[in-house]
Amino acid sequence: VLSAVMTKPITEDIDVLVLLPHNNTYLFSYDRVSPAIFYAQRALEADGGPYSGFRFNIHFEKSDCVNDALFALVDGSCRQKPDLILGPVCEYEAAALVRLASHWNIPVVSAGALAAGFRSKSGEYAQLTRIAPSYLKMAETFTAMFEHLHWKSALLLYEDDKQERNCYFTLEGVYHQMSDYHVRLYTFFQEDRLDTDDVLQNIQDAEAVIMCMGADKIREIMLAAHRRGLTSGNCLFFNIELFNASSYGNGSWKRGDKYDNDARQAYASLSTVTLLRTVKPEFENFSKEMRRSSEKAGLLHCDDCGSVNMFVEGFHDAMLLYAIALHEAMKNGYNKKNGTEITAHMWNRTFEGVAGQVSMDVNGDRNGDFSLMAMTNVEAGTYEAVANYFGANGTFQLLPAFNAERFTLTGRHKEPVDI
Amino acid sequence: VLSAVMTKPITEDIDVLVLLPHNNTYLFSYDRVSPAIFYAQRALEADGGPYSGFRFNIHFEKSDCVNDALFALVDGSCRQKPDLILGPVCEYEAAALVRLASHWNIPVVSAGALAAGFRSKSGEYAQLTRIAPSYLKMAETFTAMFEHLHWKSALLLYEDDKQERNCYFTLEGVYHQMSDYHVRLYTFFQEDRLDTDDVLQNIQDAEAVIMCMGADKIREIMLAAHRRGLTSGNCLFFNIELFNASSYGNGSWKRGDKYDNDARQAYASLSTVTLLRTVKPEFENFSKEMRRSSEKAGLLHCDDCGSVNMFVEGFHDAMLLYAIALHEAMKNGYNKKNGTEITAHMWNRTFEGVAGQVSMDVNGDRNGDFSLMAMTNVEAGTYEAVANYFGANGTFQLLPAFNAERFTLTGRHKEPVDI
Repeated sequence: VLSAVMTKPITEDIDVLVLLPHNNTYLFSYDRVSPAIFYAQRALEADGGPYSGFRFNIHFEKSDCVNDALFALVDGSCRQKPDLILGPVCEYEAAALVRLASHWNIPVVSAGALAAGFRSKSGEYAQLTRIAPSYLKMAETFTAMFEHLHWKSALLLYEDDKQERNCYFTLEGVYHQMSDYHVRLYTFFQEDRLDTDDVLQNIQDAEAVIMCMGADKIREIMLAAHRRGLTSGNCLFFNIELFNASSYGNGSWKRGDKYDNDARQAYASLSTVTLLRTVKPEFENFSKEMRRSSEKAGLLHCDDCGSVNMFVEGFHDAMLLYAIALHEAMKNGYNKKNGTEITAHMWNRTFEGVAGQVSMDVNGDRNGDFSLMAMTNVEAGTYEAVANYFGANGTFQLLPAFNAERFTLTGRHKEPVDI
Repeated sequence: VLSAVMTKPITEDIDVLVLLPHNNTYLFSYDRVSPAIFYAQRALEADGGPYSGFRFNIHFEKSDCVNDALFALVDGSCRQKPDLILGPVCEYEAAALVRLASHWNIPVVSAGALAAGFRSKSGEYAQLTRIAPSYLKMAETFTAMFEHLHWKSALLLYEDDKQERNCYFTLEGVYHQMSDYHVRLYTFFQEDRLDTDDVLQNIQDAEAVIMCMGADKIREIMLAAHRRGLTSGNCLFFNIELFNASSYGNGSWKRGDKYDNDARQAYASLSTVTLLRTVKPEFENFSKEMRRSSEKAGLLHCDDCGSVNMFVEGFHDAMLLYAIALHEAMKNGYNKKNGTEITAHMWNRTFEGVAGQVSMDVNGDRNGDFSLMAMTNVEAGTYEAVANYFGANGTFQLLPAFNAERFTLTGRHKEPVDI
């Protein structure tokens, strides 16, 4: 009898409020992410597993990257407060929602809310767990690389859209992380004409230029820098491309115009920091099903819909992580309404996510692995990963394709730059 | 019978949620402002008046200048949403609250929320009425003065406390308002040492320096400028002192230290923009009662507790304005739950406030009157109003004490400034 009690799964009904935009221009839209959440739900509720006693009542509400998430939570909460909130992703919307959720002691797990401000978990963001690597985690790649290659200074160059401000928040993370280096910021606004002369003037005394902006603007700057001789080892150029959002450069030089040849040569000095995706065999099944769901939702027109992005994977793993934490908390005698306890169980642990191991730091933020991509064949204009950064242990690993010469400031003091 | 019906006052119960901090370091604390709200309530509910049928159920909740106001509204609203919200004052707290109140169609009247961002009433701040002149209204004083005196350039110099950021928002208003002039910004952080050399270097090519910071920092800068000969007509100095908050300079040069004499001479070049307070005879009674309430609350230790500040007056007048608007809306057949209609009746109108006429612009923001104070007796070191700005009609009026020479950049091109 005792044994039967021991093996009987813990049962609980869990109200989940998921806050995602309906607009499919977002990589984390309802159509893209909801199949991953249902996939995780099926796996968790499947017979025989340790979480098969959990019943997830998943309720979706629209997020609009402004105030809808907060309004959805508030308007729905007079009936019954949710036990778990997934999302929202956008920074400003998440800030408002997480404050109220923390006030109500409701765990929030998001694959967004990546800005540096959310790392302060002692007060208003106490209930926030970040299941995708934040901008600060990404920025560790730069400090590891700078330390390894003995660089000292950088210019952070970004386009501010004044709306969701992904590029602002991305380089804000780099700025905070690189506080021991000589770092300057250069902003321009999306609606303004890009003054490449002024940009290049500002590049002068920086060893590295770290950029976040649309792909066309990246190309414009690289072409201008190439014309001024800044791409011959005078300066190292980086762009950041975390999840293929349109605000990020995609590293591609090719446009089929008369500048392609120059651009290819210019991009030989441009390296891209991107997520390192390690994938285990079981991932293939998940990936296939996500592709099928995208097809059904009519999403396959866009370039990157076939692939599982960081948000899709993240919100899937959010369900697993919550189930693990709730299960532990309940075994210890706590109930689902004790958000503080459940959130604590999600932090400082490693678990098997759908694509591989997921490592959460003591502060409830996922450690990230990143790759540095560089052009390894200038004739063909093709890119390869030349280095990896592993966030869980902080190692910077050079790959065989890494060419030390390519990352040395050779031209710096030889020829004065004529602008 | 018809006549009896016509003169019978409109009756209604009105739930008012007032959001004020308990901490008396705020000029808009519960102890300071609540007596003014009760004073207005008594006047409105008094027999025989047009609003004597209104019964105000006033409920106070704590505001902490962070998130408390939002939480108070949300937590209380499952029972019954308020009909009117007064406050909060602090910018960030007001932003969150007004968004939700606008979503729920509840009028908010505040003597705060003075930042430029709140002027956009088409979306998330639709229900906000500002009963005290905003920073943009104050900034009109500078554009009127610059136009009148043919100045072209200014340096905006402020101390950022990174918390409530009154000085940041104050000069943000000036920056927006002066977009047709050559204006630069210089920030320093409250916790950092003030580098007066660097400040003065930046003053060089500006005709006017407009400052917002603590009184001691103002004095430090004026003394440094005086030592470098910048106070002899090379440059005009202004500070802004709207409500005597400790973050604002109080224009006083005297400290009883060995620099008093230099400071007095330096302050001969410093003018202060402040609220112009016109007071009608009936105000005396209100003022006396506020003083009595302050005494009862044990507030008379502090310097400015005896006087009625902008917040105390504003929240009093907020009750009057709402009563007028609700009365009109109800006469037109609307009920108290139609926030949009009531808010519309509060905008674009002039009414008799406790201290004098109050003029609300079409956007629901109060027009402001401001004075320019300058030292008129350098031997005695005493100040007088030398000019007034009237917001309702945009006139800039020179007073007899205005000394044109004092506001002419005489030294500017005569002697090079040696720094």
